[in-house]
Amino acid sequence: KSFSTTFYRNMLSSELSEADVSALRVNKERLARDLHHSCQWGFGIRWGDESTDTGMQRLALSEEDKSVRNWFIQTMKDLKCDITVDEMGNIFAVRAGRRKDVPATFIGSHLDTQPTGGRYDGILGVLSGVEALKRMDEMGLETEGGVGVVNWTNEEGARFPVSMISSGVWAECIALSKAHDLKEVPTVASLPTAASAPETMKSALQKIGYLGSMPCSYKSTPMAAHFELHIEQGPHLVSAGQRVGVVTAVQAYRWFRLNVIGRDTHTGTTAFEHRADALYAFARMMVRAREVAAGRGCLASVGIIEAKPGSVNTVPGEVSFSLDIRGPETELVAEVEKELRRDFDEIAAAEGAGIGKPCRVEWTLDFDSPAVKFHDDCIECVQQSAHAVVADASVADPKSLVRPIMSGAGHDSVFTSKRVPTSMIFVPCKDGLSHHPEEFCSADDCATGASVILQAVVRYDRRRFA
Amino acid sequence: KSFSTTFYRNMLSSELSEADVSALRVNKERLARDLHHSCQWGFGIRWGDESTDTGMQRLALSEEDKSVRNWFIQTMKDLKCDITVDEMGNIFAVRAGRRKDVPATFIGSHLDTQPTGGRYDGILGVLSGVEALKRMDEMGLETEGGVGVVNWTNEEGARFPVSMISSGVWAECIALSKAHDLKEVPTVASLPTAASAPETMKSALQKIGYLGSMPCSYKSTPMAAHFELHIEQGPHLVSAGQRVGVVTAVQAYRWFRLNVIGRDTHTGTTAFEHRADALYAFARMMVRAREVAAGRGCLASVGIIEAKPGSVNTVPGEVSFSLDIRGPETELVAEVEKELRRDFDEIAAAEGAGIGKPCRVEWTLDFDSPAVKFHDDCIECVQQSAHAVVADASVADPKSLVRPIMSGAGHDSVFTSKRVPTSMIFVPCKDGLSHHPEEFCSADDCATGASVILQAVVRYDRRRFA
Ligand SMILES: NC(=O)NCCC(=O)O
Ligand SMILES: NC(=O)NCCC(=O)O
Repeated sequence: KSFSTTFYRNMLSSELSEADVSALRVNKERLARDLHHSCQWGFGIRWGDESTDTGMQRLALSEEDKSVRNWFIQTMKDLKCDITVDEMGNIFAVRAGRRKDVPATFIGSHLDTQPTGGRYDGILGVLSGVEALKRMDEMGLETEGGVGVVNWTNEEGARFPVSMISSGVWAECIALSKAHDLKEVPTVASLPTAASAPETMKSALQKIGYLGSMPCSYKSTPMAAHFELHIEQGPHLVSAGQRVGVVTAVQAYRWFRLNVIGRDTHTGTTAFEHRADALYAFARMMVRAREVAAGRGCLASVGIIEAKPGSVNTVPGEVSFSLDIRGPETELVAEVEKELRRDFDEIAAAEGAGIGKPCRVEWTLDFDSPAVKFHDDCIECVQQSAHAVVADASVADPKSLVRPIMSGAGHDSVFTSKRVPTSMIFVPCKDGLSHHPEEFCSADDCATGASVILQAVVRYDRRRFA
Repeated sequence: KSFSTTFYRNMLSSELSEADVSALRVNKERLARDLHHSCQWGFGIRWGDESTDTGMQRLALSEEDKSVRNWFIQTMKDLKCDITVDEMGNIFAVRAGRRKDVPATFIGSHLDTQPTGGRYDGILGVLSGVEALKRMDEMGLETEGGVGVVNWTNEEGARFPVSMISSGVWAECIALSKAHDLKEVPTVASLPTAASAPETMKSALQKIGYLGSMPCSYKSTPMAAHFELHIEQGPHLVSAGQRVGVVTAVQAYRWFRLNVIGRDTHTGTTAFEHRADALYAFARMMVRAREVAAGRGCLASVGIIEAKPGSVNTVPGEVSFSLDIRGPETELVAEVEKELRRDFDEIAAAEGAGIGKPCRVEWTLDFDSPAVKFHDDCIECVQQSAHAVVADASVADPKSLVRPIMSGAGHDSVFTSKRVPTSMIFVPCKDGLSHHPEEFCSADDCATGASVILQAVVRYDRRRFA
């Protein structure tokens, strides 16, 4: 069943039949072309021979981020969208609906990447929105409410170490001033500005010209709902050969910065029992963290570490590191934290006990994201759309290609879900690998996900005015 | 027993009586004054209220190092010394003896410090030489051969990660080209140039104007012998209440740079068994290193660590770190290394086994310093001098204040000992603490050590022409 591009000319979403909606598909080739086109700004480590066989290194608010933002805005203007940039640099592009007095339904994600990131994490989410609007435009499909695409700033939390910070400010869960004052991680790989004094989010926004004037709040840029397409970033879909994940929930996580204070001393003349070696204490803590987290079905990870003073023959007297604890329930993460606070104190106390000056450990909570359940209406729209899109698959039970799934990673949808109906769509990625240059999602899988989000948005629009 | 400053006027070392030599003392107040004066260039972290209650941060070939070098040269010129600067920036200042055709006896050490170093490590050694020459000058004491003071470049190995590198080149144990090409540690604390491309030793020498033209070799700047005064940097003298260590030997050590290669991946979506977490592997390695070293009476320490890409929510796929292994015998260090090579391979193989892409670990040997025994003649001169200097102590058995000792730290004397008779003198330091801003040696202990080295040099001069 295939539709001519004129089929929907001047049709309104609410006038379509169920079969018409189920037949909606994006243009796979155009989506792939646009996606890789947008990856010209900030492409990273090469891993294969094809021109698109590279990772991405597009840290939030870098020059590369500025370029892709400019491209995004121009592209959306060409689609006659209305553009708004808020105080966190979030970009809202809205295609008007019939009714002017209601908020738009949004497709959103992010264009920033990890320092050694890939071409799909976040980027696919925004580009699926671009493609959905291109498709609606060429078909002449109109909606009751508007349909928007939003690019959220610094979702990764790689350059500025709070993930989803700008959707967090929008949801009024994070204070604007805290976000504006947040400093970049000085050691993040290859960041050209890392050399000089670290930028704050505000100074970085100013530098690239994306400090907008619109207040960053769900009150100023309201939404009817938020849908997000993302690669799974984990192994479940790909290893089961499934094609679409209907995301019902997101696991909890907390980010900490820890400082271990010991005593600088000579490596060659200081017996182990006379040391308060902050790095040795760290090593024991990291080993313990995995043990404790694993024991409760959780994760604990260290991504950033710095040891001072940083000399071969000086025992480090100060170590700071990041700790990322995750688990399927908020309570489990809290339990891991509690246990680790006790164990780390114990480890610190043991190191340096011989000189009566044991190490100390200090914790700072940088970010707290409790477990989230998405909205039933949105989940239903996604599920119906997913079943419709996979229906033509040549397997006995196409619906088996779709499964409900919990997200291990955080997403901007976590914060939009605090204020508006929200849900997400996952598609498989190679080896479940993400935050790695070789992160990969086939053009087919990208298009499947984008067709699902296109239908979900149309279904949501029909539903809200039914 | 006190001598007038004119006592020795126009006396020759060889004409003194044994009692005259034993009565030689430095000027304690002047030594302390000069020492702290020289610490105005590069003073570091403050820990007390006195003007001298700070550590030192005078990395090799920094602007501060340049300033103290200029001061050292001017001071030695004022004492009518002949100055030579070689291709490694080593500075030789020689006070002529009666005989012009023989090499001088040297007092040497270094003026560079750790990033969080103190005021005595190395500095006391050079300043004791300055004071010895000032004392000889004011007394009019002449020697048969000349007496020199040498300031060796980058003894610490903190900025350029090979310790004693310039005495090593002088001894022709390290190739000049290797030393010139050695890059600075990019992460060393607060180094102003760390921001830009790392300097090499050669470019840093040029930058501060200390790339001399004299070949760096014991053949071009020969010595009769090398004596070095140093704080112990360990707890033995201070905890036994002893005043002088007659250093007979230096323990062995090896410095390695290790790379652990794993796989970048998402912290939130990657189960532990799907990780090849290079930092987790490192943590296990560091814990193991202490176990293995302790089991053989050795030390193993990590001073520098870098994890890439350095993002809270990316499992580090690459970690590099320094490893410093020490032990009283060369063979013991080799055994620890061998065991750790096997264990680290095992640890690396376990991390990532679940995905069939385990971590790998690569070792690079940066520096190898086998155990050293000093020269009997020099040891004897030091021992006699030490007994003479402590003789007036008001204890039952003054000789009990002097003990033979092995050095845990490396010193330039390690390399001079390969070419000329060499030995060292230790004095106690507070809590045995070194490579720490609070490193401290009392003015009395400094003067005791300096008086011992003054006598030792005179004794050696008498002995070699006897
Ligand atoms: N999707 C994604 O990688 N988001 C970054 C936030 C997180 O660490 O989960
Ligand atoms: N004395 C001293 O601290 N030397 C530095 C070389 C070493 O690490 O032992």
